[in-house]
Amino acid sequence: MSKRAKTLRREHGDLQGQSLLDPDRFFSADPVQRRVARELYDAIADLSIVCPHGHVDPRLLADENATLGTPADLFIISDHYVFRMLYSQGIPLEALGIPRRDGARENLGDPVEADHRKIWQTFADHFCLFRGTPNGVWLAHELYQLLGIQQKLTGATAQAIYDELVDKLARPECRPRALFERFQIEVLCTTDGASDDLACHKAIRESGWQGVVRPTFRPDAVVNLLTPAWRSNLDTLSAAAGREITTAKGLIRALEERRAFFKRMGATATDSGVETPYTEALSPKKAEEIFSRALAGKATTPDARRFTGHMMIEMARMSVEDGMVMQLHAGCYRNHNPVVFEVFGADKGHDIPVASEWVYNLKPLLDRFGNDPRLTLLLFTMDETTYSRELAPLAGHYPALKLGPPWWFHDSLNGMARYFDQVMETAGLYNTAGFNDDTRAFVSIPARHDVWRRASANWLAGLVVRGLIDMADAAEMAPDMANGLARRTYKL
Amino acid sequence: MSKRAKTLRREHGDLQGQSLLDPDRFFSADPVQRRVARELYDAIADLSIVCPHGHVDPRLLADENATLGTPADLFIISDHYVFRMLYSQGIPLEALGIPRRDGARENLGDPVEADHRKIWQTFADHFCLFRGTPNGVWLAHELYQLLGIQQKLTGATAQAIYDELVDKLARPECRPRALFERFQIEVLCTTDGASDDLACHKAIRESGWQGVVRPTFRPDAVVNLLTPAWRSNLDTLSAAAGREITTAKGLIRALEERRAFFKRMGATATDSGVETPYTEALSPKKAEEIFSRALAGKATTPDARRFTGHMMIEMARMSVEDGMVMQLHAGCYRNHNPVVFEVFGADKGHDIPVASEWVYNLKPLLDRFGNDPRLTLLLFTMDETTYSRELAPLAGHYPALKLGPPWWFHDSLNGMARYFDQVMETAGLYNTAGFNDDTRAFVSIPARHDVWRRASANWLAGLVVRGLIDMADAAEMAPDMANGLARRTYKL
Amino acid sequence: MSKRAKTLRREHGDLQGQSLLDPDRFFSADPVQRRVARELYDAIADLSIVCPHGHVDPRLLADENATLGTPADLFIISDHYVFRMLYSQGIPLEALGIPRRDGARENLGDPVEADHRKIWQTFADHFCLFRGTPNGVWLAHELYQLLGIQQKLTGATAQAIYDELVDKLARPECRPRALFERFQIEVLCTTDGASDDLACHKAIRESGWQGVVRPTFRPDAVVNLLTPAWRSNLDTLSAAAGREITTAKGLIRALEERRAFFKRMGATATDSGVETPYTEALSPKKAEEIFSRALAGKATTPDARRFTGHMMIEMARMSVEDGMVMQLHAGCYRNHNPVVFEVFGADKGHDIPVASEWVYNLKPLLDRFGNDPRLTLLLFTMDETTYSRELAPLAGHYPALKLGPPWWFHDSLNGMARYFDQVMETAGLYNTAGFNDDTRAFVSIPARHDVWRRASANWLAGLVVRGLIDMADAAEMAPDMANGLARRTYKL
Repeated sequence: MSKRAKTLRREHGDLQGQSLLDPDRFFSADPVQRRVARELYDAIADLSIVCPHGHVDPRLLADENATLGTPADLFIISDHYVFRMLYSQGIPLEALGIPRRDGARENLGDPVEADHRKIWQTFADHFCLFRGTPNGVWLAHELYQLLGIQQKLTGATAQAIYDELVDKLARPECRPRALFERFQIEVLCTTDGASDDLACHKAIRESGWQGVVRPTFRPDAVVNLLTPAWRSNLDTLSAAAGREITTAKGLIRALEERRAFFKRMGATATDSGVETPYTEALSPKKAEEIFSRALAGKATTPDARRFTGHMMIEMARMSVEDGMVMQLHAGCYRNHNPVVFEVFGADKGHDIPVASEWVYNLKPLLDRFGNDPRLTLLLFTMDETTYSRELAPLAGHYPALKLGPPWWFHDSLNGMARYFDQVMETAGLYNTAGFNDDTRAFVSIPARHDVWRRASANWLAGLVVRGLIDMADAAEMAPDMANGLARRTYKL
Repeated sequence: MSKRAKTLRREHGDLQGQSLLDPDRFFSADPVQRRVARELYDAIADLSIVCPHGHVDPRLLADENATLGTPADLFIISDHYVFRMLYSQGIPLEALGIPRRDGARENLGDPVEADHRKIWQTFADHFCLFRGTPNGVWLAHELYQLLGIQQKLTGATAQAIYDELVDKLARPECRPRALFERFQIEVLCTTDGASDDLACHKAIRESGWQGVVRPTFRPDAVVNLLTPAWRSNLDTLSAAAGREITTAKGLIRALEERRAFFKRMGATATDSGVETPYTEALSPKKAEEIFSRALAGKATTPDARRFTGHMMIEMARMSVEDGMVMQLHAGCYRNHNPVVFEVFGADKGHDIPVASEWVYNLKPLLDRFGNDPRLTLLLFTMDETTYSRELAPLAGHYPALKLGPPWWFHDSLNGMARYFDQVMETAGLYNTAGFNDDTRAFVSIPARHDVWRRASANWLAGLVVRGLIDMADAAEMAPDMANGLARRTYKL
Repeated sequence: MSKRAKTLRREHGDLQGQSLLDPDRFFSADPVQRRVARELYDAIADLSIVCPHGHVDPRLLADENATLGTPADLFIISDHYVFRMLYSQGIPLEALGIPRRDGARENLGDPVEADHRKIWQTFADHFCLFRGTPNGVWLAHELYQLLGIQQKLTGATAQAIYDELVDKLARPECRPRALFERFQIEVLCTTDGASDDLACHKAIRESGWQGVVRPTFRPDAVVNLLTPAWRSNLDTLSAAAGREITTAKGLIRALEERRAFFKRMGATATDSGVETPYTEALSPKKAEEIFSRALAGKATTPDARRFTGHMMIEMARMSVEDGMVMQLHAGCYRNHNPVVFEVFGADKGHDIPVASEWVYNLKPLLDRFGNDPRLTLLLFTMDETTYSRELAPLAGHYPALKLGPPWWFHDSLNGMARYFDQVMETAGLYNTAGFNDDTRAFVSIPARHDVWRRASANWLAGLVVRGLIDMADAAEMAPDMANGLARRTYKL
């Protein structure tokens, strides 16, 4: 390294701990745009948070005494987008305390690290990996703003910060319900399997606590014939629905009943995750043939593709009938790494996006229900190439279609900027659905919404300073982006 | 909405009507880049407008007394990119006065709104939908600059503005020919079917009016075997060409003759719109076999694909021979919504772009004519992913290839910025063809060219301030972008 | 052209020759970001240059008296990305002195221009074609900074500059070895066929000269069964390896031996160029069947695809065993133009990128070796759509994967900006491999690294001014981007 670089590093290293969070962060460098962005942001920064889609475990809120665990539990072990980055740099998942499916944790000679201080140290030693990433941004918000840490996390400060975090996380104000209120969450929707008894949601309602938590109906486990445990998933659904399911028709009936149950429990939306957004209206006969093959354990990949495509149309029909918003997340190759899957299981950071095609694939569904104002179909993609080419033109025409916010890896500053750039001109803001955080990491919720609100304010400021809209327009659009569009789209 | 947001809205709402059009709109927020952009823009803002490709109805200019209709006719009913946005938000097309194919308009109990004031009010009530969209930008230019409206269009101001517009549109200076001159249109090319008798163009020429209006030869209706009315289109061509067409060879001969007629009538270019840019040099025998099947009503989808691909090569050959510029617009799924198509027909905002592939598809054509300096083949895409990957490298090598400007939905500020970003480094400016507005909306022409000129000036300013080119270079490039490249490429 | 445009051109034309290279070029227009970028850049501008991948001819450095030829040789004839741009505008390759395969150069009535002054004039007359292109940027750096030309290259200044260049290129300090030292090249890796005897590398080592030049093992010519001269390439490999190759197993053994030889000669990496990154683990039997068909001249396109895919897995296995870094460049249609290929041969600017798919294609290889920390697999693409969708998520998970820098046409300011934007958030900086220039044009090396360093400094400055990282982080990241990541990734 050059002398100059070393000097730079030393000079600025001294500033560590100062201004860990810039109050104007994420706004344009340009002073005029920055001022307008700040003004728009100030007007929405404190609006209540609407979480119409996410994966927070409702148990956190069902038990009033639930805690967030150790700092390692909270920030590393439970967040596969944190530990995947460490893993990508050669750190074994065992060293990060990730439990193995074989339960090796409890065995003698356990390879899984149990010392959470040590896990934290490893994380802190490699905190540089998160520079410029969304995880880095959220972690900074959580540590320095939410939890009030006042020094930069590094290998050197790791243990002192660990102590401070342990202390803070033990306090009553860090219990999930207390945080829910402190976060000003107006409503939080979870995601729940079609057979789920929603016991946690019942418990929350019956507890007298005022927080609004709603379930979301997600039937992937029984709709995708190639799900490894499909047959037993079907049995579980049979049990939940109280009816034996031996036909495709029976499956559809069971789903209708479960949707009704979810609706009674407060759900306003469903969610489907598919590898491809292919849809096809099968004849009843053809649907039953495929279903029979699946029951016999003989469904093929094309069978599964066609059956799922058929079920998407059925889901749209049910939404037309019961008014639940239909969400479709497409284009994800689940569990790409067989080694990690074998040892650690699903949701370990090895789901990888693939290209998607919407115009041909979605047409059979749109032919039937695309013009029906009773349907709200929300599309989510990881294939940004379809933003301007396919999704914005589709959403800018079909009354039933709206576009979900940038999803997953694109829930990031650049991801949002590309989304605004590529979607808004053709679809218009009002064919989008605001923001959702889609997170399992409960404490990251304010950080994620804050990034969106800052990015939105900055985008609007860019339109204002370049004369595309006036400040009156921007002042109306900003709160819609912050929570209005989400609230209205999801009928919350 | 928060108090703050309400205050913001109130404060800035008071400013409505002031500065409806920022004189420095669309330029970078950065003051230095903005100053350079303004300087470059000032030098080209008033250059004459060259329109080498578009869809203005020549009847507007053939009849010296033609008018633009009511404000609802002009801005809503005739512009499917305006009414598609309203439709996407659940407003029925009938409520916007869009005529139905069944002529329900004239029937008793007509569902189609006939009160243009009411249509205008619906439009104004939803004008917020166009915030940040190209339509919003063009409408602002047309209302506030071209037609001199001095208050912002909202639900509240709708009727007063309607009155003012009715008054202004009735004046002689708002007749199409008067506007053509006021717009400083140097030449306007229309798009005309291969069988068209070009009567309007004849009428314009013979009228003694000085405006230059040229036809463009577009043979899609007879080249695409799967066009619904292909058989009758062929009969129309037979009649126009004065020869029975019973073979592929006969079709080609007829096209050659029609091209010669168009050329005599002033055409310098042809245009083809295809779903895919596939090309294939069929043997004469194979071409005739497919054509025979088509005549018998038995052409398959692959037949149509191959035949169209063959005809593209024939069109290139003819261009080599007669010198007409060949335009190829690829990657559009026409009439995606069967419900809207059934009731309202084609060109109702439901054409949707699809992915395109150029490197393999175009190779058979390029193998034959890509090195021939007599050919100018202009490519247009809606699949921006091909800008940097395929199109710019192809145009940066083949002498016959040039790239058309950002097309359709990408005729927008962001669309242009992406085009400059992704095309120019590899293709170079001089392998592009300047701008064309591609519009049916005659009054939007100055607005569209102004957006392009501002975007061009701003792009060049960005190169200057970052030291990539000097101001002398930029001062040469700017007028080429404004109209020079278009004029030269299209041989106008 | 308007008066205003003419005035502008005249005024600024007078400034030609002043500030031919802006010291703050390529930085953001924003003054704050620019100042931070400048500070970061100053700290890395003079760091030594690491060239881990490129195509410089080692003969240039093996012969201490080698020269760079005439200005036309240096800047035009040897640089197919310069002459392809001139060709795209209709200038025959013969007029640019490009040798024909038929050796027409030496014949009577030679159509190939031999007067290098005339070639230079043609180039200078069309120098405007390179405005805003990477070639324009590099040429400016080479002419105005490296070679000290003090007037802008135009048709008018062409001959004077030619004289000056001839004079300068003849001086000892312009010999390749002298330039190597002046450029502060720490290490330069060439690319060499699997059968190459590395005589030049031997000569360099034995000459006593201190410059570090390393070979890279590239076996495409024998791995791709459809290479036109595959059979004779195989014979050459047999000769080099000293063993007859009659089986796939024998081929693999020969490659292992050649890798060992390359490693002894200093190589730390291999490189493979494939049209698609398809991989497949063939059974030994299936591999031998395909190899037999290839020996018999009967290999099909699917055969070649599968065999190459199989060999990629074998190459990964060998890398696990011998520790050599594996580079994979995918997605290029070689020699797209049969006319140019027939007359002038390969590498004449008509290789065209195509779309690539990585998630499904690379899975068989990753299933085997993706978790192995002994493997470093570097991916390069021309399909930018895979940056955020596929490559960054893959590299952000698999320990064996890293992403190479923006390749080929994307080795440009916009290409780098898109790479930073689309890759870094998801992969993180430390799953990327820094920069490599990938060039045949030896004298362009400092220019290319300078563009990368400026673009990196500017990207980091953007993160700093928007509060994503602090200056201490940026000061550590900048030298890693300049040469640290390249040095470490390639084990140099």
